[in-house]
Amino acid sequence: MENILIFGHKNPDTDTIMSAIAMENLESKKGKNAKACRLGNVNKETKFALEYFKQEEPELIENVAEGQEVILVDHNEFGQSVDGIENAKILRVVDHHKIGDFKTSEPLYYTAMPVGCTATIIFGMYEQEKIDIEPKIAGLMLSSIISDTLLFKSPTCTELDVEVATKLAEIANVDINEYGLNMLKAGTDLSDFSPAELINIDSKPFTTNGVKYQVAQVNTASIEDVLKGKSELQNAMQEFIKENSEDLFVLLITDILENNSQILVVGSRIDIVEKAFGVELEDNMAFLPGVVSRKKQVVPVIDKNI
Amino acid sequence: MENILIFGHKNPDTDTIMSAIAMENLESKKGKNAKACRLGNVNKETKFALEYFKQEEPELIENVAEGQEVILVDHNEFGQSVDGIENAKILRVVDHHKIGDFKTSEPLYYTAMPVGCTATIIFGMYEQEKIDIEPKIAGLMLSSIISDTLLFKSPTCTELDVEVATKLAEIANVDINEYGLNMLKAGTDLSDFSPAELINIDSKPFTTNGVKYQVAQVNTASIEDVLKGKSELQNAMQEFIKENSEDLFVLLITDILENNSQILVVGSRIDIVEKAFGVELEDNMAFLPGVVSRKKQVVPVIDKNI
Repeated sequence: MENILIFGHKNPDTDTIMSAIAMENLESKKGKNAKACRLGNVNKETKFALEYFKQEEPELIENVAEGQEVILVDHNEFGQSVDGIENAKILRVVDHHKIGDFKTSEPLYYTAMPVGCTATIIFGMYEQEKIDIEPKIAGLMLSSIISDTLLFKSPTCTELDVEVATKLAEIANVDINEYGLNMLKAGTDLSDFSPAELINIDSKPFTTNGVKYQVAQVNTASIEDVLKGKSELQNAMQEFIKENSEDLFVLLITDILENNSQILVVGSRIDIVEKAFGVELEDNMAFLPGVVSRKKQVVPVIDKNI
Repeated sequence: MENILIFGHKNPDTDTIMSAIAMENLESKKGKNAKACRLGNVNKETKFALEYFKQEEPELIENVAEGQEVILVDHNEFGQSVDGIENAKILRVVDHHKIGDFKTSEPLYYTAMPVGCTATIIFGMYEQEKIDIEPKIAGLMLSSIISDTLLFKSPTCTELDVEVATKLAEIANVDINEYGLNMLKAGTDLSDFSPAELINIDSKPFTTNGVKYQVAQVNTASIEDVLKGKSELQNAMQEFIKENSEDLFVLLITDILENNSQILVVGSRIDIVEKAFGVELEDNMAFLPGVVSRKKQVVPVIDKNI
């Protein structure tokens, strides 16, 4: 059997990639033979951060063998995880999401906290183990927090996230605001994505009471720009739910400067979204002022209306 | 809304009761308004420990209201939890079992470790919060570890359990072996239980791939004594699975001095047990040398054969 494999969710975002790398670092300092992996291409924001801190991308994997020892970061739902996860041996989960579509056949380590970012939890694990965080790893973990909290502006951001980010910035020796804005802006360059790629950059499936739905999010400095390709996006979303037998696709187009989102919705159960947010969709769209967090402001609201 | 309610599983054992009390103590020292509860009668072993350390039984509850804030200790599966758990707000879970039949609609604190006992994990939480454990609470937590690890003899027992128990015994000022044997023996007095009561002392339901099964355990110093009521026990087990539409009931009769178990099995899927343990049941029974842990030696083996 190979090393312990550590990975976050499919369609990896910055927290998923950096948390896998940080956990590899922590586990290896504890004497374990562990390797960070990724389940998809890194996005432009993540690429910016990896290059800034001179860190290579983790290796791509597509499935795991039966009995493979694994550590999950930044997710727990099997539908978001690697193919073959049902028959892997899950040693540990470090996560900050709701729990669902997850089970094991044996006891394990599970550390979850309702904070903005997985890296914030991993910071506490370094502290508990009394292991120092080196500057490069601190920079990567800081990038996670900036990404997941949209530079502390998301309602998912907690005091602990801000506190940990401040300490990490000191170790990494970067200016949070300057570095953070540059990193977030790098992620908003959507120019060379096809519609099918764009709805897949940061997209997650959910299953609640038998309803299968997808929520994707893109960050932008101009919602209007993204909506220029509205009909192509809608077609790509329709195609996606057809292929994956889903009932609903919500695309969250988030303005990271103004902290609002426009949603574009397709599927046979768009009624759930209308009920959840108390809106009537016009041309399959609605504007949601102040909504920037899929995890806190979108998925729980949808779940409660299924 | 009431205080935060803290409780372990139905058919409470010593770890479930003591961990709820310890968490109430820890939460209140953190300034939270929390109350330990229980979901059933305390058993004789637990009663012995509560009386020894002069602690009252937690209050009995049977269900929780929608939106009630709760903390789960020593379990996570909804089938083992309070009625109404699906609509409660689960703030935190502290547990040492496999995860299954569990989900939330929002992120939460979840601390699980593959150790022998929930109290061992709670000890670490006191340490992390830099809160001293008072002698009475230390005695109750020590009782949890002794109970769940059968005085360190169960394969679920880890080095950490032994280390924590040693520290707790020092704080509580008791001799682990002397106190421990007395406590375990108090739990083996089965004289005034009816067969229906006996199979319910420490009984847990599980659901895996659609198969519903029950695993109950009784500790004894003489397996032979318990088997004097074999046919009555079998009838009670048959009755139970009929009422609860289950496919299988495994009663684990564990000799706590010799560390072996006899299993008594009924139901339409006894084939699963025969396959799982590679035995042929005779008169619905099989002897399993060295098997004392439902969690580590019984449930995962059954699950893998469903």
